[in-house]
Amino acid sequence: MRSYREELWFDIPRRRDYINITPHVEDCLGKSGIREGLCLVNAMHITASVYINDDESGLLQDYDDFLERLAPHEPISQYRHNQTGEDNGDAHHKRQIMGREVVVAVTEGRLDFGPWEQIFYGEFDGQRKKRVLVKIIGE
Amino acid sequence: MRSYREELWFDIPRRRDYINITPHVEDCLGKSGIREGLCLVNAMHITASVYINDDESGLLQDYDDFLERLAPHEPISQYRHNQTGEDNGDAHHKRQIMGREVVVAVTEGRLDFGPWEQIFYGEFDGQRKKRVLVKIIGE
Amino acid sequence: MRSYREELWFDIPRRRDYINITPHVEDCLGKSGIREGLCLVNAMHITASVYINDDESGLLQDYDDFLERLAPHEPISQYRHNQTGEDNGDAHHKRQIMGREVVVAVTEGRLDFGPWEQIFYGEFDGQRKKRVLVKIIGE
Repeated sequence: MRSYREELWFDIPRRRDYINITPHVEDCLGKSGIREGLCLVNAMHITASVYINDDESGLLQDYDDFLERLAPHEPISQYRHNQTGEDNGDAHHKRQIMGREVVVAVTEGRLDFGPWEQIFYGEFDGQRKKRVLVKIIGE
Repeated sequence: MRSYREELWFDIPRRRDYINITPHVEDCLGKSGIREGLCLVNAMHITASVYINDDESGLLQDYDDFLERLAPHEPISQYRHNQTGEDNGDAHHKRQIMGREVVVAVTEGRLDFGPWEQIFYGEFDGQRKKRVLVKIIGE
Repeated sequence: MRSYREELWFDIPRRRDYINITPHVEDCLGKSGIREGLCLVNAMHITASVYINDDESGLLQDYDDFLERLAPHEPISQYRHNQTGEDNGDAHHKRQIMGREVVVAVTEGRLDFGPWEQIFYGEFDGQRKKRVLVKIIGE
């Protein structure tokens, strides 16, 4: 069994954004040399998500509206978590809705995707450096 | 390390439905010959989910009500994504709530389940052929 | 390839609670002797979650409010599932929001975590014995 590990770094200028990171993960897979296995991609921070869906700009705005409706950023005082001095209580909720991680099959050296699957980094508390972990195991 | 891959095809007659696919996944595991490892089951389409919960008809209707409350199908115009000519903006949201994938432990050649765990395919934009990927790695 | 399996048992005195189980999972990893691989941690019951987020008491209360807002426990009659004699329809919904499982990378014999990641057991229908499965594969 072989394994490969790489961290991807992001510094998103906006508080919230949705970034297609599929090419970065494909690069990791190429470097790993793994042909058959599983590829885990997870946010290493707890106010961000990694998820798989469509790369369509209207949908990304729809998601942002949806998450703001379920867990609005303001008023900041609505979250007990923000009494610690943070203002990112909403981000911890948005991340739970969208998920921490994806596991993707690796088949014949490629990410084994359906027709429209793309891996996204969902940032909900940006404007600072944060990381995504790629871990691939297989042969 | 061994690996096994199979696609399951579904053509759901309704827009939305919830199908217990556990027997199909067990068939894949049997064919794989793998005794210890991990089994990934994921929707290959971005308007469908694979999740694990109870096979109880009332619950399946409750889930459908819940998802319609959080992300209603109509009015179609509420989703920017539908300006592309689609009418499935809601389905992309429902899928995020229910999740893309499950990873199940394989132990002594069986899906290592608790007492009521069953694998479901959640279809949110049906009436056409769509696929689920089963990828098993182990020994 | 090596694999390791252990069940963690919990008997939560309250209906709902959020328990940091990271030390238990680290113990499992130590016993496994696995240095590189993947660690699956999943609820074996369908009214509980395993998720990763911050161990901050205000946030745990925020999550509980959020889940009660999305899928309230009462009135019990609002869930068809409860017509079976259960009163845990809400718990099946809360578990879908928070997720069934996490997959954590194992690197150099440790859970490969970002700075604040902690593994939680989310109980939504407690006051009885329930289990979490830890399955680790790798080398």
